[in-house]
Amino acid sequence: MATPQIDNLNVVPFVSVDNMMKLVLTIGVETVICGIAEQIESDFKRWESFDKTARIASHSKEGVIELMPTSDGEVYGFKYVNGHPKNTKEGLQTVTAFGLLADVDTGYPVLLSEMTILTALRTAAMSAVAAKYLAPKGAKVMAMIGNGAQCEFQALAFKTICGIDTVRLFDIDPVATDKAVLNLQKSGLTVIRTHSHQECVTGADIITTCTADKQYATILTDNMVGSGVHINAIGGDCPGKTELHKDILLRSDVFVEFPPQTRVEGEIQQLDEDHPVTELWKVINGDENGRTSEQQITLFDSVGFAIEDFSALRYLLNAIKGSNFYDELDMIADPDEPRDLFGMVQRAKANL
Amino acid sequence: MATPQIDNLNVVPFVSVDNMMKLVLTIGVETVICGIAEQIESDFKRWESFDKTARIASHSKEGVIELMPTSDGEVYGFKYVNGHPKNTKEGLQTVTAFGLLADVDTGYPVLLSEMTILTALRTAAMSAVAAKYLAPKGAKVMAMIGNGAQCEFQALAFKTICGIDTVRLFDIDPVATDKAVLNLQKSGLTVIRTHSHQECVTGADIITTCTADKQYATILTDNMVGSGVHINAIGGDCPGKTELHKDILLRSDVFVEFPPQTRVEGEIQQLDEDHPVTELWKVINGDENGRTSEQQITLFDSVGFAIEDFSALRYLLNAIKGSNFYDELDMIADPDEPRDLFGMVQRAKANL
Repeated sequence: MATPQIDNLNVVPFVSVDNMMKLVLTIGVETVICGIAEQIESDFKRWESFDKTARIASHSKEGVIELMPTSDGEVYGFKYVNGHPKNTKEGLQTVTAFGLLADVDTGYPVLLSEMTILTALRTAAMSAVAAKYLAPKGAKVMAMIGNGAQCEFQALAFKTICGIDTVRLFDIDPVATDKAVLNLQKSGLTVIRTHSHQECVTGADIITTCTADKQYATILTDNMVGSGVHINAIGGDCPGKTELHKDILLRSDVFVEFPPQTRVEGEIQQLDEDHPVTELWKVINGDENGRTSEQQITLFDSVGFAIEDFSALRYLLNAIKGSNFYDELDMIADPDEPRDLFGMVQRAKANL
Repeated sequence: MATPQIDNLNVVPFVSVDNMMKLVLTIGVETVICGIAEQIESDFKRWESFDKTARIASHSKEGVIELMPTSDGEVYGFKYVNGHPKNTKEGLQTVTAFGLLADVDTGYPVLLSEMTILTALRTAAMSAVAAKYLAPKGAKVMAMIGNGAQCEFQALAFKTICGIDTVRLFDIDPVATDKAVLNLQKSGLTVIRTHSHQECVTGADIITTCTADKQYATILTDNMVGSGVHINAIGGDCPGKTELHKDILLRSDVFVEFPPQTRVEGEIQQLDEDHPVTELWKVINGDENGRTSEQQITLFDSVGFAIEDFSALRYLLNAIKGSNFYDELDMIADPDEPRDLFGMVQRAKANL
């Protein structure tokens, strides 16, 4: 695998939060999102070459910690991610993450990165890729319910990949909307502040729901969703956490990432286990239809899948080549004689 | 959870390979092994309070990459570890590893560490803890077949925890034995170099097998193992990789870490799925017998379990407190307003 110019076997390139921000600002948020989106499309087209497993979750009263591994036989990747809705009240992030790529042939890590920011970027990229195949033609207006950490990334992804020119914002906490309005003021988007769920979705071609409460919620009720709309549902992503009324699901054609995971974690946890869904990768590679009529309600029931993180990390590994956007982490013990781990430790006495 | 004195939420303490070596040398290898052993015993006594899952393995032609998570409801831990027997020929480690602890209540990581060296220390500590309960009384002589990266750590663990005073070494590659003899010359152990499997085990109270080939091997045949011996089998630890002849297993009382994992990965993969085994934690907390007679052959069929890594990381987290043996890693995005991840990225422009 091509890696940054690192000669020492003990060293793993590490992208810190600070370096991730510098990289994103230097390259540009929209360009990064487009780059990740291209990698996701390319990896979804070869979906069958990946080892796929539902994420391994450790649930507690307050949240969940998950490991999301995958491999294409050449490169292995995984993400560590938590989800703790109550964190926000304590001044902490609901979701934090980091991730790793390794060389399957040797098992040696080749990249460690913060993934809180990278996950926001890849989630936005994934949503926009899905909408590219599912949203009504010529969609210009997106409603966004939930104006938290994901909001601006989603808005920019839909602008740059789907051609959205207007976002309509609503959050039950007006402070969140204040923040989003401010952050998007120079985005080139027309930003409209609304004062209710109903007002928010009025006239929207695409409805994005990205709220954070860990509960069965009904952000959208059936009467709020007209025909022809594309729903990008990203907030309902763990058991017991949904955003849409069941009746909406029954009127929609549902598209998912990895069915065994989505049936447990997504909006469709409300439906029977055999409710028909379409795998998005089959739409992307042309095996299945995406949107087929103007009246159809399409729903991307997104929960986030390991291959998306893999794609984002692959993008990143490529992006840091020849740059200063990484540190060298002394993470792999590398004795001159591989069997002499003990001797390596002993010889380190000289450096004490 | 008690953590090192770190005030910034973005920072995760990181123990590099260099710092791990300095810590081990400053505290002393045997003292570190004893500390980890105490933590393992303490955690095995409360075995039932842990989330347990067999490790999540990604197999390839040349090896395996595994994630080993566990949690006691307050602290979450996992280890990334590879196993690539052919690596040695390329000047790489067969096994490299790193691990992490996180606070279950917030999901925030509290420790990242190299674990190649730490795994060697914890594996040795685990073996010696098992032998404390299973080896014949007054055992003084240990045979060690396989003199690779694990060898010296095992020797010191059995010296300090079990009172072994003599080790008998054999490896099919005499260079590996040369290395072990040299590394152990000031250990206080009598070190005897032998020239065959048979010679090695002669007169030994404990037999440790730690070879590395990924194949069904027969390091020990039935006639080599006399009554009353304790076998510490640590090299057979993945599907298709065993060290002992099946007949030895049938003559032994078999003790294991986590049966669902050992039945797939351990020596007992050669036996029927319902072959009786004793869980070591039950011996440690007094629910089951360890060794009950002088004639009994006891076998610790060790494959390594996530709780052992958890224990080692807990020991480490405590050991680095107030020390300089860690770096501060900028790994967690921490905006002043948790929902303003986008704004944090934008404001970083000031630092470009």
